[in-house]
Amino acid sequence: MNIHLERGSGIPLYRQIVRQVREMILAGTLPPGFHLPPERRLAEALGVTRTTVINAYEELKDEGFATAHVGRGTIVLSPRHPSTIADTSHVMAWNRLFREETARPPDPLLRDLLDLTTKEGIISFAVGVPSRDLIPLSLFKNTVNRLLDEAGAETLHHSPTEGHPPLRESLSRWLTARGIRCSQDEVLVLSGSQQGLHLVARLLVHPGDTVIVEEPSYFGGLEALRRAGARMIGIPVDDQGMRVDLLEAILERHRPKLIYTLPTFQNPSGMEMSLERRNKLLALASARGVPVLEEDPYSELRYDGSPIPSLKALDTTGVVLYLATSSKILFPGLRIGWLVAPKPVIRQCTLLKQSEDLHTNTLGQFVLDRLFREGHVEQHLDKLRSVYRKNRDLMEAALQKHAPEGMTWSRPRGGFYFWCSLPDGVNRTQLLASAAAKRIAFLPGHACFVEETGRFYIRLNFSAPSPSDIPEGVERLTQAIREAIAERRPQRDRLVPMRPIV
Amino acid sequence: MNIHLERGSGIPLYRQIVRQVREMILAGTLPPGFHLPPERRLAEALGVTRTTVINAYEELKDEGFATAHVGRGTIVLSPRHPSTIADTSHVMAWNRLFREETARPPDPLLRDLLDLTTKEGIISFAVGVPSRDLIPLSLFKNTVNRLLDEAGAETLHHSPTEGHPPLRESLSRWLTARGIRCSQDEVLVLSGSQQGLHLVARLLVHPGDTVIVEEPSYFGGLEALRRAGARMIGIPVDDQGMRVDLLEAILERHRPKLIYTLPTFQNPSGMEMSLERRNKLLALASARGVPVLEEDPYSELRYDGSPIPSLKALDTTGVVLYLATSSKILFPGLRIGWLVAPKPVIRQCTLLKQSEDLHTNTLGQFVLDRLFREGHVEQHLDKLRSVYRKNRDLMEAALQKHAPEGMTWSRPRGGFYFWCSLPDGVNRTQLLASAAAKRIAFLPGHACFVEETGRFYIRLNFSAPSPSDIPEGVERLTQAIREAIAERRPQRDRLVPMRPIV
Repeated sequence: MNIHLERGSGIPLYRQIVRQVREMILAGTLPPGFHLPPERRLAEALGVTRTTVINAYEELKDEGFATAHVGRGTIVLSPRHPSTIADTSHVMAWNRLFREETARPPDPLLRDLLDLTTKEGIISFAVGVPSRDLIPLSLFKNTVNRLLDEAGAETLHHSPTEGHPPLRESLSRWLTARGIRCSQDEVLVLSGSQQGLHLVARLLVHPGDTVIVEEPSYFGGLEALRRAGARMIGIPVDDQGMRVDLLEAILERHRPKLIYTLPTFQNPSGMEMSLERRNKLLALASARGVPVLEEDPYSELRYDGSPIPSLKALDTTGVVLYLATSSKILFPGLRIGWLVAPKPVIRQCTLLKQSEDLHTNTLGQFVLDRLFREGHVEQHLDKLRSVYRKNRDLMEAALQKHAPEGMTWSRPRGGFYFWCSLPDGVNRTQLLASAAAKRIAFLPGHACFVEETGRFYIRLNFSAPSPSDIPEGVERLTQAIREAIAERRPQRDRLVPMRPIV
Repeated sequence: MNIHLERGSGIPLYRQIVRQVREMILAGTLPPGFHLPPERRLAEALGVTRTTVINAYEELKDEGFATAHVGRGTIVLSPRHPSTIADTSHVMAWNRLFREETARPPDPLLRDLLDLTTKEGIISFAVGVPSRDLIPLSLFKNTVNRLLDEAGAETLHHSPTEGHPPLRESLSRWLTARGIRCSQDEVLVLSGSQQGLHLVARLLVHPGDTVIVEEPSYFGGLEALRRAGARMIGIPVDDQGMRVDLLEAILERHRPKLIYTLPTFQNPSGMEMSLERRNKLLALASARGVPVLEEDPYSELRYDGSPIPSLKALDTTGVVLYLATSSKILFPGLRIGWLVAPKPVIRQCTLLKQSEDLHTNTLGQFVLDRLFREGHVEQHLDKLRSVYRKNRDLMEAALQKHAPEGMTWSRPRGGFYFWCSLPDGVNRTQLLASAAAKRIAFLPGHACFVEETGRFYIRLNFSAPSPSDIPEGVERLTQAIREAIAERRPQRDRLVPMRPIV
């Protein structure tokens, strides 16, 4: 495959690649079924970044010239209607019109792996969702029918941007009972807590501003910050949570606009920040006036030990913005989360939300309000904890039985995840291919870091799979890991516990 | 009230105002019930912008030192817990941490007027919503119950960011039947069409970029563009829609990133763009590669005349991004809209949406799919058209009967609104106060312009009020207008049909 790039021609390099590959396909030089070179290899051969090649392959896929699947690479398709396609792409070169900061290619590996989880027969430890069997369907049905009868069209009409007032009241009571004293004016109902990550980033972070994050951290949180243009600095997490001892020097040097943390049963590490570190973090952030965004989706799902107060409950200076959600404990599809914050922050986030989606869906808010108000949430949590505790124990037992030498993990006291470190030098491509062949899915850890690390981590979810699938899935997974160890290649990357950021 | 500002002190002016007013309140110099000076007057007296004073008053309200209502101004409250308040605001000066482009004060007039519409006994022509009596409640209830039985937990679980696949298919069929030939891959389900305005703005508009809008235009669209940092240039709308004859010179000169239009039964003017202008607009935009964002919430609600194809249906070059919604015809509270666009745009908007709210609520998508698939939407539209046509005729008859000399409007052939121009020199403050006293609400037209205009317009909605309220409401409104004419003051502003932008 012979590609010649003209630098300085004014035509973006990825467009040059697209055009030449397209011509080769149309000319029959590259026949249907031909495997295009892996992105990294073509990038090296042409002396361009991997992103350039990814963009080119994405465009070829959009135009119907190629297709891609995990483990099989990018494959040429027989072209349909090539003339129409060529005309339209000539008129509107959309990729040139997009803002660079906001338009970025997706992580193809991650997308393919998540696609995989929807396939039949797969045992998936990949996604962080509640068990389908534990979604309280009849409770929902009864509540919806009662509400449609009692409140009528109100439940399907517009509601305030800040949230359905009774739900804001229910939430402020629920939170106050957990040590987070707040009025309903300090609660903003969100279209899922992801919206809170986005709004806070949009409100506080200019492109180029520094934000402190944990490493590893929640993929979607990092993504929202990245798309806001944040320059992220990662602080490692150990078995006591964020290494707060490293924070002071970083605050001094980088003057961040925000500190983003999941202190309780962190996604993906499962770790819990100690009370001592929580207090230290708050003291440092308050002293310097750096807002702390605390995301807390898992604290109700504790299987061992005593509760540690949330940062927001410990906060005496109003420095903490607190995010939580119904998605991990009730109905992920309702898309309802909430932000607790000082009123000026609530007001500005409300204005932004109004310009972005007017308000959160109304019926879902009515339902959630009733479930909180009538005590159903408490009851349901008891059930979840009992099932998920057993799942965690099953997964730990299976890991102890099957894990190869060099694979390590910590037992989480709550939440949804085991975070596993794989033996040095495991062949990643081989692991992904083996796992796909064995119909087992997991989240590769690289998505949870600011930049790729040398070591290969994986996140295993134990809430979604059925108890009977857990031992079987762990066995398949560890077999795939053993195969990838057998394929071990000389290691180029080294483990770097923390990049030289201070 | 004696305020002394130190410029160059490093303390923002609005903070200086807050601090001094707070001190006067705490010292008792400004007693509870004292009316603070109107924002504009204080701004003039201190030589600061009105925004500075608005920010200061907002902060005083947040801190519990003042309250405000339309027609009564900003009033001092007796301070509660002043010491705590002082402490917290000292620690976290939130208003200093917000990004200037994204954090802007709300339009207080608009907010107060919309608040008013929720009060008992008000006849409201202010908001653009369907009639509560026409929300198909039992259809919803039957469909939800069937879905919960048939599809179970699936309806409450996560669904793809692009949208529930069957709904994308239903929508692509519905649209294709209306001349918009699209595959389901070219449809992105949104959390309301407002989200589409925001995502397209975020994807295509850099702060400072030029965007062409109609004047007047949809308030929420302007707001989304404004918050993306767009520099907006308005093109006037006449009874044939946007003055496309003015477009070419503006495109030449300003190289805009986007043209935003509501060609069919425009909000707020009710006007419909002629076929000739539609074709001209598309030719100009295609020739220059400027994307056109067509928002089309009202085209199904036609009461007279024959349909004119949407811009998207006429588009042969892929230049149009098309937005529509279920909110005006079915359930506003479900928050479901859709974007039809070329695949590269769908892909980037999907990635942005994923980082902002993961996906649109699942159950609402299941319901909407069924209603489209089973033909209920067509049936329901017949009913809506018949009721709203009568409402429009009632409102026109009442306006003809009661309107004072100099008040003008055009009869809309579809949609939700009468757009009325008031007699020159009407006293706005007086009109708002009189309308509030007579318990009648409307949308003041200034919110629909890029900048304030000299003439005073109002938008009257006829879909939401009950038929019996329409004559009564129009009579009250015209009485209020007569009172404001009686208070007529010498006119300082002049009507400027178009600012010198070319």
